[in-house]
Amino acid sequence: MSNPSEETKRPIILITNDDSIAAPGLRALVEAVKDLGRIVVVAPDKPQSGMGHAITIGHPLRFQSAFLMDGVEAYACSGTPVDCVKIAVDKILHQKPDLCLSGINHGANHSINVIYSGTMSAAMEAAIESIPAAGFSILDYSMNADFSAAKKYVRSITEHILATNTNKHLLLNVNIPALPESFLKGVKVCRQANAKYEEDFEERKDPHGKSYYWLTGQFINFDEGDDTDVWALANNYVSLVPVQFDLTNYEMKLELEKNWKF
Amino acid sequence: MSNPSEETKRPIILITNDDSIAAPGLRALVEAVKDLGRIVVVAPDKPQSGMGHAITIGHPLRFQSAFLMDGVEAYACSGTPVDCVKIAVDKILHQKPDLCLSGINHGANHSINVIYSGTMSAAMEAAIESIPAAGFSILDYSMNADFSAAKKYVRSITEHILATNTNKHLLLNVNIPALPESFLKGVKVCRQANAKYEEDFEERKDPHGKSYYWLTGQFINFDEGDDTDVWALANNYVSLVPVQFDLTNYEMKLELEKNWKF
Repeated sequence: MSNPSEETKRPIILITNDDSIAAPGLRALVEAVKDLGRIVVVAPDKPQSGMGHAITIGHPLRFQSAFLMDGVEAYACSGTPVDCVKIAVDKILHQKPDLCLSGINHGANHSINVIYSGTMSAAMEAAIESIPAAGFSILDYSMNADFSAAKKYVRSITEHILATNTNKHLLLNVNIPALPESFLKGVKVCRQANAKYEEDFEERKDPHGKSYYWLTGQFINFDEGDDTDVWALANNYVSLVPVQFDLTNYEMKLELEKNWKF
Repeated sequence: MSNPSEETKRPIILITNDDSIAAPGLRALVEAVKDLGRIVVVAPDKPQSGMGHAITIGHPLRFQSAFLMDGVEAYACSGTPVDCVKIAVDKILHQKPDLCLSGINHGANHSINVIYSGTMSAAMEAAIESIPAAGFSILDYSMNADFSAAKKYVRSITEHILATNTNKHLLLNVNIPALPESFLKGVKVCRQANAKYEEDFEERKDPHGKSYYWLTGQFINFDEGDDTDVWALANNYVSLVPVQFDLTNYEMKLELEKNWKF
């Protein structure tokens, strides 16, 4: 710690996810980048899929040390993925890390899923806080997913960020097909596909005859472009979408300024 | 129902919020637009502030009829604001409404808050589903906020959308200063300010000596522009930001395509 040049060689990498501290995908992510810096894991203590950018307001948070693997500092936090990033910076690291990585999520987070995904929301929270960030997802929901090819791409993209990035708000959404490495064609920089879920709640009756509803739905891609993440993934590429958090619709802004009179 | 021309005069307006079915702001929103169409309220059965775009995956949802006021169909739903919109379309309306309004939120949702806000996430969910939508917030966290001026602006903006909008993905983030009507200078179309919270978790000890943490923080505006929502609100305008849900950072996409070699 006394040698500043050595210190600059060891970036602090905050790692989180939404599948919880116990998820194999989190372990795969740590293994992929373990030697690239000082790794600090702060992950939810229970699954938090679909939590989007939720934060915990009405009750307090806790965190405690957890064992993940030798040589890695890890904590389990009672909050959402976004809470994990916030509390990591303020109460665990007591400084901003150099990079935040989230995942590897068990399941796709392409197209509109970036908005629902706890994995991507954690990465977005970091980018909002001027910490370059990337979220990684594999197209396999199984807890037994094979991460061997994914880990190589995670490492390569992380090295790219560390070597070249000067943008503190860099935010990448990376999805990786669930295929052996020899089938993958490389990384493709993409835009978010215009695709969404068509909801279809499944109604059931409880033992008292009252209805309850499970969220189910079908994914539909309306986008015929060959520059989207959905296209890239269907064609065996790793998709990489740079993401923004200025949600202003500037085109609509011009239109409203011109046409709406109050 | 048998007269199509009469039917077209009565748009279906879905109303939701994140402060719960019992919030005065929800009632104010309904009162403001009650005669503009067939109003159907589907709101969370408990406060859901800060839930962002969270959806409920791991357990099922329920909803039941609720009384809000005479002549208004209302339901309380066990889920998040986004869940409310999804289940309203699929299981209550059994069709897409013509418009979705969310709020009136007790508290500001300007600048980066659009990402954390359950109010705005509900409206965004509607816009994703091709339902034009607007979220309304008043700059007063009190449950006793005076909504009289806000209601006039809500009504005027809703009339504008109904009269002029042909864009199914229209999504507006409207914030209203907590001022008497005579102090308000009108509506200003804005961009989202570059502003955020600097977190500062407050640590406390439980009776067993273990730490827990309350999320607190200070809002900081880094944006000096006079075209932002924060500027407009500070200058007694109602701010109106058109919002998008294509989160692709197109500028960064070009940069990565040019400079990153894999």
